[in-house]
Amino acid sequence: MKYGIVAFPSKEIQDFANSYRKRYDTHYAKITPHITLKGETEIQSSEIEEISASIKKVCEHFNPLTISISKISSFAPVNNAIYLKVEPTEQLMHLHEALENDVAGGEAKYKFVPHITIAQDMSAGEHDDVFGQLRMTKVDFNETINRIHLLYQLEDGSWTVFETYRLRGEE
Amino acid sequence: MKYGIVAFPSKEIQDFANSYRKRYDTHYAKITPHITLKGETEIQSSEIEEISASIKKVCEHFNPLTISISKISSFAPVNNAIYLKVEPTEQLMHLHEALENDVAGGEAKYKFVPHITIAQDMSAGEHDDVFGQLRMTKVDFNETINRIHLLYQLEDGSWTVFETYRLRGEE
Repeated sequence: MKYGIVAFPSKEIQDFANSYRKRYDTHYAKITPHITLKGETEIQSSEIEEISASIKKVCEHFNPLTISISKISSFAPVNNAIYLKVEPTEQLMHLHEALENDVAGGEAKYKFVPHITIAQDMSAGEHDDVFGQLRMTKVDFNETINRIHLLYQLEDGSWTVFETYRLRGEE
Repeated sequence: MKYGIVAFPSKEIQDFANSYRKRYDTHYAKITPHITLKGETEIQSSEIEEISASIKKVCEHFNPLTISISKISSFAPVNNAIYLKVEPTEQLMHLHEALENDVAGGEAKYKFVPHITIAQDMSAGEHDDVFGQLRMTKVDFNETINRIHLLYQLEDGSWTVFETYRLRGEE
């Protein structure tokens, strides 16, 4: 079973992201718009309660997340994915590190770049075309996210929420 | 904003339901397989924290749900929807009533028939054909669900989890 840890932004940001995702994101139907805090990690189904307990413990130390989004970026040429860039605050970086270090699972595959994907799995040509249109789009979202979620993946690739954790700590 | 309250069954049941839903359920991509405990209800976005608090209070009184599924049924002719019939235990009926009575929102539109939809929005002909094939399928699932979820709907019709509630009460 694969699990992952995400934060869902507000309905306003999710609706904005979906306006692009429905056209450009192959994962559109598998999960609603999200910030990945810990990427997909393979575990035994029986381990999920233990993982949930570790996440709960980590969340006790963290305050609600202050999120700021001001541009659309791309991971090209590494990956033809376009995303809403989430300001990499110290708080977000610390939360990511704590989840990596204190919750079971492999090492992160990539350096942590907080983001909300809006387009992926495009050809290089399509990517350049779409990003050419989107890169100048004005975006300006600022909000507070006070909970994160543990998800697991079904056989068809979609994700189900297992548990929600409130952030009510002090960091 | 529309909210709803659901219980997600285990990955095993969700994968089984999705094997049908991907072909027959128009809501397949909008939400993973679920038992609706309180159907979609219109509220102001600002009310969601209050609603969340009411659900939390209700859940304090309930034990994990004992779920038993032993047949595939249909709502026809009222509605051309096919579903996994969830045994309507007293516990489930009481939880539904408590959520109806103690959590803000309109009256339930239908009598509560606990189920997991696997096919919907079919023509009468397609329904009869598919149900003819599925009605004799042997299903036998028994499990415990120890959490329920508050969801809200995005503009594209998909559902995001707002909060999870553990059932750890005594009913």
